[in-house]
Amino acid sequence: HQLHQRSAGIIGAPFSKGQPRDGVDRGPDLIRAAGLLDKLQGQGCAVKDYGNLQFEEVVDDEPVGRVKRVRAVGSANQRLSEAVQAVKRDGHTTVMLGGDHSLAIGSIHGHSMAVGELSVVWVDAHADINTPLSSPTGNLHGQPMSYLLHELQSKVPVLPNFSWIKPCVRAKDLVYIGLRDVDPEEHYILKLLGVKVFSMSEVDQLGVSRVMEETCDYLSDKVKKPIHLSYDIDAVDPSVTPATGTPVPGGLTYREAVFITEHLSQTGLLSAVDLVEVNPLRARTEQDLRSTVSTAVDLLLGCFGRLRQGNHSAGYRLPEP
Amino acid sequence: HQLHQRSAGIIGAPFSKGQPRDGVDRGPDLIRAAGLLDKLQGQGCAVKDYGNLQFEEVVDDEPVGRVKRVRAVGSANQRLSEAVQAVKRDGHTTVMLGGDHSLAIGSIHGHSMAVGELSVVWVDAHADINTPLSSPTGNLHGQPMSYLLHELQSKVPVLPNFSWIKPCVRAKDLVYIGLRDVDPEEHYILKLLGVKVFSMSEVDQLGVSRVMEETCDYLSDKVKKPIHLSYDIDAVDPSVTPATGTPVPGGLTYREAVFITEHLSQTGLLSAVDLVEVNPLRARTEQDLRSTVSTAVDLLLGCFGRLRQGNHSAGYRLPEP
Amino acid sequence: HQLHQRSAGIIGAPFSKGQPRDGVDRGPDLIRAAGLLDKLQGQGCAVKDYGNLQFEEVVDDEPVGRVKRVRAVGSANQRLSEAVQAVKRDGHTTVMLGGDHSLAIGSIHGHSMAVGELSVVWVDAHADINTPLSSPTGNLHGQPMSYLLHELQSKVPVLPNFSWIKPCVRAKDLVYIGLRDVDPEEHYILKLLGVKVFSMSEVDQLGVSRVMEETCDYLSDKVKKPIHLSYDIDAVDPSVTPATGTPVPGGLTYREAVFITEHLSQTGLLSAVDLVEVNPLRARTEQDLRSTVSTAVDLLLGCFGRLRQGNHSAGYRLPEP
Ligand SMILES: [Mn+2]
Ligand SMILES: [Mn+2]
Ligand SMILES: [Mn+2]
Ligand SMILES: [Mn+2]
Ligand SMILES: [Mn+2]
Ligand SMILES: [Mn+2]
Repeated sequence: HQLHQRSAGIIGAPFSKGQPRDGVDRGPDLIRAAGLLDKLQGQGCAVKDYGNLQFEEVVDDEPVGRVKRVRAVGSANQRLSEAVQAVKRDGHTTVMLGGDHSLAIGSIHGHSMAVGELSVVWVDAHADINTPLSSPTGNLHGQPMSYLLHELQSKVPVLPNFSWIKPCVRAKDLVYIGLRDVDPEEHYILKLLGVKVFSMSEVDQLGVSRVMEETCDYLSDKVKKPIHLSYDIDAVDPSVTPATGTPVPGGLTYREAVFITEHLSQTGLLSAVDLVEVNPLRARTEQDLRSTVSTAVDLLLGCFGRLRQGNHSAGYRLPEP
Repeated sequence: HQLHQRSAGIIGAPFSKGQPRDGVDRGPDLIRAAGLLDKLQGQGCAVKDYGNLQFEEVVDDEPVGRVKRVRAVGSANQRLSEAVQAVKRDGHTTVMLGGDHSLAIGSIHGHSMAVGELSVVWVDAHADINTPLSSPTGNLHGQPMSYLLHELQSKVPVLPNFSWIKPCVRAKDLVYIGLRDVDPEEHYILKLLGVKVFSMSEVDQLGVSRVMEETCDYLSDKVKKPIHLSYDIDAVDPSVTPATGTPVPGGLTYREAVFITEHLSQTGLLSAVDLVEVNPLRARTEQDLRSTVSTAVDLLLGCFGRLRQGNHSAGYRLPEP
Repeated sequence: HQLHQRSAGIIGAPFSKGQPRDGVDRGPDLIRAAGLLDKLQGQGCAVKDYGNLQFEEVVDDEPVGRVKRVRAVGSANQRLSEAVQAVKRDGHTTVMLGGDHSLAIGSIHGHSMAVGELSVVWVDAHADINTPLSSPTGNLHGQPMSYLLHELQSKVPVLPNFSWIKPCVRAKDLVYIGLRDVDPEEHYILKLLGVKVFSMSEVDQLGVSRVMEETCDYLSDKVKKPIHLSYDIDAVDPSVTPATGTPVPGGLTYREAVFITEHLSQTGLLSAVDLVEVNPLRARTEQDLRSTVSTAVDLLLGCFGRLRQGNHSAGYRLPEP
């Protein structure tokens, strides 16, 4: 394995209104402060940092039915979609640093606007596929996939600031990995649409290596589409990444979590990555936070070609005495 | 996977005299306080709580040979056996919350009196199969299987308050999972009787999924008997469930521990469950205790149909705008 | 599985100058204090403790190029090589308790002088195969394999106190397990020499059981040579063995780490073991240190026949009433 040339276009999205807990908006700066850019460059990856998006204040953002902060989430994601499109036009693999997982709406939408049909690999403890009407909590970070899937549009009502969204993913192009806390409503949707799911039960049964083989076989059955990886840090076990809003026991080990990125990176198809739900205010100790953030960084390094067996550049020769 | 109707009959057995450490008698109330009943009901399971057994004080319970607290253990298990028989007559899957693992004597005995021949799946770091004469410690929680197995009766002397016990399990109907601290005497017995053992070495070699397939194939070779699951919380790794009397490194992961319950639950044959050896006085921190108890609850939820991929009830339909 | 007669010859090597951090010289005494000798004897293993080596003070040990403490490391390893040869002559399986991993030079060299051609199984987060000229740090604990491999001698300059070393290992007789932090220079060497590597990626892909089968098949392709196991405690995950100088996330689980020793022990070919890089000064808590040292002990017990499924001696019979 020698180093490929790759290039990362980094977008910070310090946004937290898809869920009720403060702190997740600090994710982008924490992940940068842990050395993401230097480490990517150190492994031979070109990097451009597009900075943090600024989101407009939305006043009068009363719930629509049970759904909270609809206008703010709609508006932030429209901005993010445009940013992602610009970064894709510049030729980079986008890295969207969240923020909460409602940001997947804009990230996947923008990615699809720029490159057309996508495969989506969603790594998460949760399916985030409730419709605004099925959601038990009304938090939009539990709903992004419902706005993006063609097959669910008859179930989704009109919402303020959501009219710009064009559904752009087909159920057959979506794979979930890591699920272990799925609402009954979501389970119904997943079965109705026949979505491919590797819950933690399947990870236990097959092992992560076969899960990734089957994921890639399934997604590239006919055509190899660009891959959008949407990585919720809560997919990883809370013993490794505790600093997140909705931790669930029984998650991916650090090694499994990294393996997923290594495998997708080696396909050569990885075209956009989201890394979301790092929340420093949920850490109980310094070590909790350090472990969460450094794992997030390692996942991104894996997306850009780092391999645990090592790499060397093509030109290297051993010094002689 | 849709929700089955199941029903749980819960028996608390606050008993600790099968071993020397205080605290394990608080297990039943702690597991209930962590929300077991609500959570079982929330996943569509009918629940009846039969409360805690009251055990009579035994005075003058001097050791018999090396064996400690013989009369108290014999008497408590006789009471438990009767309680289990009553709960089985009511048609429930019994849930016996220990207490120490000597309680398996009464739980398995009562279960067998009620339903006849059983398969026993014993998940534990230890084999708990010493005879009263081979036991290095004399603690009865390390001996319960020796009183229950037909094949060992010639090796077991008469003990006070033990005469009500009828051996009711055959060695070929017993499978161990999770062993990693087996006395030489126990190893001799396991080989002599040809008991099926998946020690942690075999779990490492085969993976938990194949272990469970082989377990169920082995047990239902000819007839499918009702399954008695006797789950010692010390089967799980001490990093997950430290609050127990005899922790041993290198145990089941949380995921493996849950997988075992999911798999047995899906057989439809699970007829009684013991959950034993949770001891709050062995926790060093609040978090130690919380993690131990919530894992115990998750194991029981797995026994009653919870699946990490989710469930939904048959009648559910998605709301439309 | 019954108990074999085995015998362990223990050599303490309290040496730390192959790397910059104090404390690793305390490894031998800590591992002994955790009960290694008693536990080995308790499992039926004969033990002779040869005590700790005393290393001569080297004054004026200025760096040679980038390489630090060359003369001290050369001299200490010469002494160690002689000690290992003496212990092998006495007929024991040697147990070299480090100290840092530069000690593998003397340990493997002495082993090979005593028994001839060896297989080497190197379990480590790191490859420790930099040449003195390729090493980015100049620390000799990152270079031992370069002095031992026939194939690298044209790349290794003359160094003071290193002239006694005869290269004694062929690249085809070396297997790495556990790598996850490999310098580009080392990756180049591993590819150039075609060394067999099971990095953590391969452990994830194949599972530890197949890794060990493939390791043993590969090494005993034509002849079964005596095996030298060089175990760096940093191969194990830092959540288990944090008290070490260069911890790297994503390591072997306790169970995988033990499995490796169990498997090699069962080959009957294990002829020498190094256990290195335990550093108490790197522990943040008492528990950190206890866990690191007791894992080191368990690895050594695994090397000398301990099995998690248990053992019993041939003569045992069950007591009858
Ligand atoms: Mn999510
Ligand atoms: Mn999530
Ligand atoms: Mn037990
Ligand atoms: Mn036990
Ligand atoms: Mn090393
Ligand atoms: Mn190392």
